Amino acid sequence: MTEALREPRQDRSRATRKRLLEAAIECLAEVGWSGSTVAVVAERAGVSRGAAQHHFPTREDLVTSAVEYVSQERLSRLREHAVDLPTGPGRTQAVIDMVEHMYTGPLFRAAIHLWVAASSDERLRERVLVLEAQVGRETHRVALELLGVDETVPGVRETVQATLDMARGLGLANLLSDDTRRRARVLRQWATMLDTAVGDARTV
Amino acid sequence: MTEALREPRQDRSRATRKRLLEAAIECLAEVGWSGSTVAVVAERAGVSRGAAQHHFPTREDLVTSAVEYVSQERLSRLREHAVDLPTGPGRTQAVIDMVEHMYTGPLFRAAIHLWVAASSDERLRERVLVLEAQVGRETHRVALELLGVDETVPGVRETVQATLDMARGLGLANLLSDDTRRRARVLRQWATMLDTAVGDARTV
Repeated sequence: MTEALREPRQDRSRATRKRLLEAAIECLAEVGWSGSTVAVVAERAGVSRGAAQHHFPTREDLVTSAVEYVSQERLSRLREHAVDLPTGPGRTQAVIDMVEHMYTGPLFRAAIHLWVAASSDERLRERVLVLEAQVGRETHRVALELLGVDETVPGVRETVQATLDMARGLGLANLLSDDTRRRARVLRQWATMLDTAVGDARTV
Repeated sequence: MTEALREPRQDRSRATRKRLLEAAIECLAEVGWSGSTVAVVAERAGVSRGAAQHHFPTREDLVTSAVEYVSQERLSRLREHAVDLPTGPGRTQAVIDMVEHMYTGPLFRAAIHLWVAASSDERLRERVLVLEAQVGRETHRVALELLGVDETVPGVRETVQATLDMARGLGLANLLSDDTRRRARVLRQWATMLDTAVGDARTV
């Protein structure tokens, strides 16, 4: 096979994989774990079942890969937007709003379905824990970078963790109904509290 | 039927109902929504299927009633412990720990399964939203009482809401693995931030 032929095939394969991963998130967010089989996701992605199974032999492979892939995509986009953030006052609120956005869309809904499925499936749980630890670490690092705070100052690490825990809780509160207005008030208050707590640790 | 005969029958009926509700929470927490049929819960409770269906015609009835009943039980117990709480420093941490406890046991695991099931089931969603609003209001009121803060002071309402949102997020983080040590550090930091935020609103 010549270089010229190999490249487009790799591109096609990568595009197919990407379509499957994105369809898996949509599917999981809409119909949950039990309805998100490889066959159903393949159909939604417009990919043959055989091709889908070539990429992802099992639903566990597909769904955990999807949550990992889309999480990394989101985190990369957050990082890219870091340069647009204001410095000084207003930065904290802007960062909190950006971070919260990760917990109120289809990715979070998909992740919740995955977590709950994993909570009563030992094999899936092991995989999700590895994924969770990795995405959790990355998210924490991005939040620190965006907030522009020095984690070596006592209390900062826990405050950033608390921010992500609250973001997750707010995401859960948004699962069944639109909680946007209440959430905005809570986040405004949270931004004030966070600024007070980490004021001395600002590097931006 | 004489009064003497009616009373024990009512007691038996109430005891049966209670056993079913408690078994439903255990069952939901362990095997999730799909495995928690009325028949399965009845067997776990040691109640005949007919008797169970007399109390709760559908799984929706049983499970929503269970989450409501056990939530109210927990909130009552929290209220009873209010008198044991220290006044002044230390109270906030003690209250936060008590509240968080509601989000890390079987009741929260059961509720998560119910929420996620409701997120892709329109009819169940309506019922869960009503239940959620009611339990949410009650929990907020109890948290206010225990913390001993005046909600009319600006920011206090949102700070208490933030506390419950964070408690929910920490509960979710505890779903797949024991997050006790990290959680303790986050809650300690949270107590400090909360005290700073609501200091002027203390009534206890």
